[in-house]
Amino acid sequence: MSQGDDARRIYPAPPRRRPEDGERFDGWGFADSGFRVHANGAVELTGDRYDLAGSELPDLLPWVSRTIGVALDPRKINPPQYPPVIPEPRENPDFLSALRKFLPDDAICADPTIRLRHGHGHTQQEIYAIKHARLARIPDLVVYPNGVEQVEALVAAALRHGACLIPYGGGTNVTQALLCPADEERFIASVDLSRMNRIRWIDPENRMACIEAGAVGREIVESLAQHGFTMGHEPDSIEFSTLGGWIATHASGMKKNRYGNIEDLVLDISAVGAEGVLARSGASPRESIGVDLRRCLYGSEGNLGIITHATVKLFPLPEVQRYQSVVFRNFEAGFDFLYELKQQASPPASVRLTDNLQFQFSRALKPTSVGLKRLKGQLEKFYVTRIRKLDPDEMVACTLLFEGSRMEVAAQESELFRIARKYGGIKAGAENGKRGYELTFAIAYIRDFVMDHYLLAESFETSVSWSRALSLCENVDRRIREEHAVRGLPGVPFISRRITQLYDTGVCVYFYFAYYYKGVDRPSEVFAEMEHAARDEVLRSGGSLSHHHGIGKLRAAFLPEIMSAPMLEWSRRIKRAVDPQNVFGSANHGLDGGKQPR
Amino acid sequence: MSQGDDARRIYPAPPRRRPEDGERFDGWGFADSGFRVHANGAVELTGDRYDLAGSELPDLLPWVSRTIGVALDPRKINPPQYPPVIPEPRENPDFLSALRKFLPDDAICADPTIRLRHGHGHTQQEIYAIKHARLARIPDLVVYPNGVEQVEALVAAALRHGACLIPYGGGTNVTQALLCPADEERFIASVDLSRMNRIRWIDPENRMACIEAGAVGREIVESLAQHGFTMGHEPDSIEFSTLGGWIATHASGMKKNRYGNIEDLVLDISAVGAEGVLARSGASPRESIGVDLRRCLYGSEGNLGIITHATVKLFPLPEVQRYQSVVFRNFEAGFDFLYELKQQASPPASVRLTDNLQFQFSRALKPTSVGLKRLKGQLEKFYVTRIRKLDPDEMVACTLLFEGSRMEVAAQESELFRIARKYGGIKAGAENGKRGYELTFAIAYIRDFVMDHYLLAESFETSVSWSRALSLCENVDRRIREEHAVRGLPGVPFISRRITQLYDTGVCVYFYFAYYYKGVDRPSEVFAEMEHAARDEVLRSGGSLSHHHGIGKLRAAFLPEIMSAPMLEWSRRIKRAVDPQNVFGSANHGLDGGKQPR
Repeated sequence: MSQGDDARRIYPAPPRRRPEDGERFDGWGFADSGFRVHANGAVELTGDRYDLAGSELPDLLPWVSRTIGVALDPRKINPPQYPPVIPEPRENPDFLSALRKFLPDDAICADPTIRLRHGHGHTQQEIYAIKHARLARIPDLVVYPNGVEQVEALVAAALRHGACLIPYGGGTNVTQALLCPADEERFIASVDLSRMNRIRWIDPENRMACIEAGAVGREIVESLAQHGFTMGHEPDSIEFSTLGGWIATHASGMKKNRYGNIEDLVLDISAVGAEGVLARSGASPRESIGVDLRRCLYGSEGNLGIITHATVKLFPLPEVQRYQSVVFRNFEAGFDFLYELKQQASPPASVRLTDNLQFQFSRALKPTSVGLKRLKGQLEKFYVTRIRKLDPDEMVACTLLFEGSRMEVAAQESELFRIARKYGGIKAGAENGKRGYELTFAIAYIRDFVMDHYLLAESFETSVSWSRALSLCENVDRRIREEHAVRGLPGVPFISRRITQLYDTGVCVYFYFAYYYKGVDRPSEVFAEMEHAARDEVLRSGGSLSHHHGIGKLRAAFLPEIMSAPMLEWSRRIKRAVDPQNVFGSANHGLDGGKQPR
Repeated sequence: MSQGDDARRIYPAPPRRRPEDGERFDGWGFADSGFRVHANGAVELTGDRYDLAGSELPDLLPWVSRTIGVALDPRKINPPQYPPVIPEPRENPDFLSALRKFLPDDAICADPTIRLRHGHGHTQQEIYAIKHARLARIPDLVVYPNGVEQVEALVAAALRHGACLIPYGGGTNVTQALLCPADEERFIASVDLSRMNRIRWIDPENRMACIEAGAVGREIVESLAQHGFTMGHEPDSIEFSTLGGWIATHASGMKKNRYGNIEDLVLDISAVGAEGVLARSGASPRESIGVDLRRCLYGSEGNLGIITHATVKLFPLPEVQRYQSVVFRNFEAGFDFLYELKQQASPPASVRLTDNLQFQFSRALKPTSVGLKRLKGQLEKFYVTRIRKLDPDEMVACTLLFEGSRMEVAAQESELFRIARKYGGIKAGAENGKRGYELTFAIAYIRDFVMDHYLLAESFETSVSWSRALSLCENVDRRIREEHAVRGLPGVPFISRRITQLYDTGVCVYFYFAYYYKGVDRPSEVFAEMEHAARDEVLRSGGSLSHHHGIGKLRAAFLPEIMSAPMLEWSRRIKRAVDPQNVFGSANHGLDGGKQPR
C-alpha cells in the first residue's frame, strides 16, 4: 500500500438519472411499476423491474379474501382521487428574492404536485390523505441546492427572512417526518437534496468514501460496485432513500450482520446548522474527542440541521453472494433456531424469519395458476409437508443471504444448517431464499393496490430482548384483534410478523397490519387509532419505540413513556440552544422550538 | 429459553474490597507494587501481583542508559517530595449542612491527601506536580454517594448553594480531566462513585447486565466470570478504572476486535443532569428514537452530568483463550501484515505491534541476568536472528490474544499465520505473547520509578488511516527529536510506538515519549511543550486528536483545529443549555459554562 498521502483517490462520475426511472407521485415507487387487477381477478405487477412483474398472479386476491374473511370483488374498488385539493402556497417575497440571488431558476419550484410530494412520506395516513382526502399544510416552495454553499446560503436566508426549512431526501419515511406542522405560519421551503448526489471520492486503500447526502441508495450501490466496493447498507427503501435520510432516520440495513447499521458505517458527518457549517478536519477510524456532536445527527430527522455529506466505510464486493432458505414447523421453532444461531455462531449477512401468514402470502404471489383450493394442496405436495409432516397452516420460512469469502460463507452455511437441523429446520433452497429477499421490493407496491380494494395496510417495527420477543408478538396480535373487534370492523384483521434483524441481546420484529375498511367511517383515523394501540402494546411488552423507522410525528407522543422528564427537557433545550429560531421547523419528536407548551 | 419475562435474572453479591488492594496516593497503582532499585543497580518490581514482580531486573537501567545516551546512576535520584503543600479547602457551610441531611458522616471527607488524590489523574504534569511542585486548586471536599437518590440530592444541593461537582471514578485519566480549574471560585466537591459499584443484575438469557458507574474493571471481570460472562472490555487501566469512567472518556479495550469498544458494549446509560435523572424505560438491542442523548455522554468527561449506571452487553467466557506472538524483520513488514490481516481475515481479539525499541525494552525487562553487553548477544542466539537473519536492532514483535470457540480460534490462527508468513513473520510463541500482553499492567508503574531517575515519561495516542499511519509515526519521531535538539536537552529522547487497534479504515497508534531532565529548568513545562508539539505533528499528519484517552484539559486547545467554529459553538450552547449554572464545573473541552470568553 502507498504511504504518506490519501491521494490515490478515485473520483467517480456523477450518477446519471435515467428518464425511465421516474417516480410516481401518487404512491410508492417507480412510475412504471404497480399492481393492477385483470378482469379475471388475476393481479399483475406492471413494468419489468421485478422478478414478480409481468406474470398473472391469480391466487393473490382469493388468498387475501380468505385471510381477511371478506370476499374482495376485483371490480368494486375505491378509486383514488389523486391529486387532492392542494393548499395555496404562502408568500414570503423577501425570502424568495434572497433565494434568487444564489439559486438558478430551475432550482426553485412552486409546482403544486411537486410541493405536495415534498409534504409527505409513506405512512398509511399520508397516502390515504393524498388519495382520498387532503393535506392541510405542505411546503410553499421546493428548492434544489447543488452543494454546501447553497445550503449555507439557504439557511442564512431563511433565518433572515423568517422562513422554515425541511430537508427532503428520498421521501420514503414512514413516520410523518415530512408532514408540515399544520399550525406553521411561516413560509416553508422543502430543501430537496437530489442535486447533491455525487460520490465525491473513493479512497480504495483506506476503504472510505465521501458521499453527498442526496445520493440515492441504488445509485450508491451501482457506482461503488463499478469500483469493486459496497457500503453494504440495504434498507428496504434502498431504491429511493438517500444517505442523508439514512443518517437522519438512524437506518438499519438488511445485511447489517455483515456490514453493520448506519451508525457503524458512517465515519464522519457534515451538516449545516443554524450557526453555519458543522464540519471536521477529517474522518478517523475511531476517536474520543469529547461530546461527539455528529452523533446528535443520527435520528435528528431534520430538527437540527441539513446533512450535506458524510464519509463512510466501504467493503470490497463479496467473493460469494448466496441465498438460501430453511423452513420450520412453526414460528417458535424458527425463533429458537435464531437464538442459538446468534449466540453460538456467526449469522450470515441477512437472516429473516417470516411467520406462517407471510409464508402463505409469498406462495399466494406465485405466478403459476393453481387456484385457491389447490393452494393448500400444492403446499401439501411440497416435500416438507408430505415427507416431513410440516403443517402448511403452521410452517414458517427463514430466508438467508450469505456474503463473504468462499471460506467464510462455507463455514457460516455449515454451522447454520447444523443448528437449523436441531430445530427441525429443512433446507428449502436458494431460489426461495432469493425470492423472499427480493419480494421485499415488489411488495412495497402492494399497499397502494390494496388501498383501492378497501384495505388499509402499514408496517411497523420494534426491537426487543430475546426473552420477550415471542410474548410481544402474541400480545400485539391479541391487542389488534381486540381493537378490531371492539370497533365492530368488518372481516378479520391481517396481522403478520417477521424477525428481520438479530442482535446479541434481542431482535427486530417487523409487523404488517391491514384491515378492510369498506363502510367504515373515517377509515384512516381508525387505522391510526389501532396502530397507536399496537404501539402501546409493543411498549408494554418491552419493545422499543422504534428499531429503525424513527419517531417523526407519528410516535412523538410516546416519548414521555420511554424517557424521563429531564431527558425530554434536555432534547428541548438542545434544540432551542442550537436552533433558537426553529429554522429547521419540521417539528419532529415534538421539538417545535418551544412554540407549543408541553 | 424462557419467554415473556426478564425475571430469570441473577443478582450478584456486591464486590468485597480487600484491604490488601489499597491504592497508592503518590503515583500509579496498588500500594504494594512499585519499582525500586537495588544497590547493585538491578531493578525490582515489589509485591506479587505481576509476573514481573519479585525478580531482579539487572538489564533495565543499563539498557535505558544506552537508549537515552545518558548513564543513569542508580544512587543519584530526584527524591519525590510527596505530599506537596495542599491548598486549604474553601468553605460553603450551607452546602455542607445540606449534604449532612442526606449523607452519613463517613460519606463526607475533608482529608487533605484524599482531596489531593481526587484533584488529578495520571498525566506526567500532574504526577510531577504532586511529587515536585503542587496543585493550585483541588476539591474542597470528597463525597461518596451510595446511589442515584444521593447523587440527585447532591446535584440539587450544589445547584442551590452554588457549589460545583466533579465526578470521580478510578482517577486514572491521562487528560487532566480531574484537574480543578485554577480560577474556580466556587466550592468544589469531588463526587467519588466508589460506593456505587454493584452489578445490579445479570440477565443470562439476553446477555445483559446493569452495572453501577463506580464498579471497577477488575471487580466487574471477577464478578461476571463467576456467572460465566465477560464484558470483554479491557482498557490498560482495567485494574482501577470504572464503568462510568469508560463511558465518560469514550474508552477502548485491548480486545475490541472481538467485543467492541465501549460504545459497542453499552446499551443504555443513566445519569443525573442539572435537571434531574436522565433515564429510560428500558434497554433495547438497537433503536431509532430521535436524537439519542445518551450518546452525548460518551466522552462527556464530567461536563454534562454524573453517570450513575449503565446496561451493557455480556459475552459468555470464551471456550479458548490463547496467546501467541510473531516477530517481523521491521515495523513496516509488521504493519503490512496488519493491513492484510484486517482487510482479508478476522483478526484475533487483540493484536498489537510494537516497534523495535519496545521489543528491546521488553527483553531488557527479562529477569535473567545477562548483562548489557550480552543482551544483544542473547538476542542473536535467538533462533530468528541466527537462522532467519533478523536484525535485533530492527526486528519487531506482534503480540496476539485469541478468544472464542475452539473452531473460531483455530480458523483465526491458521489464517493469521498464513498471512504473517507472506510478510516474513515468524512465530515467537505463546509465552512471549502472554508476557507482552501482561507487561502492560506492570509497565504502568515504571513512569513513577523513572521520574525519580530524572526521566519524564508519558504515553499518547491517536487514530489514523492506514495509508498515513507510517508517515505519521515518522513525522512524530522526527518532530520530537527536533524539539529535543532545539532546546539543547541532555541525551537523546526516548520515542517509541506500537499499533494497538485495527479498524477497517485505519489503526490506533500508541506512543511512548520520555526525556532526561536532570539540569533542565522547568522540566515538566518543557515536557508539556514537547508533547504539545508532538500532538501538533499528529494532527498535521492526519491523525485524530485522540483515539481513546479523550480531551480533558490537556488537548482542549486543539479543538478549534479539528472542528469548525459552528460545531464548537454547538458544544458551548449545548453545555449552557443543559447545565446553565455550570454545576458540572470540570471545565473539560474548554466548556466552562461561558465563564471565559473564547
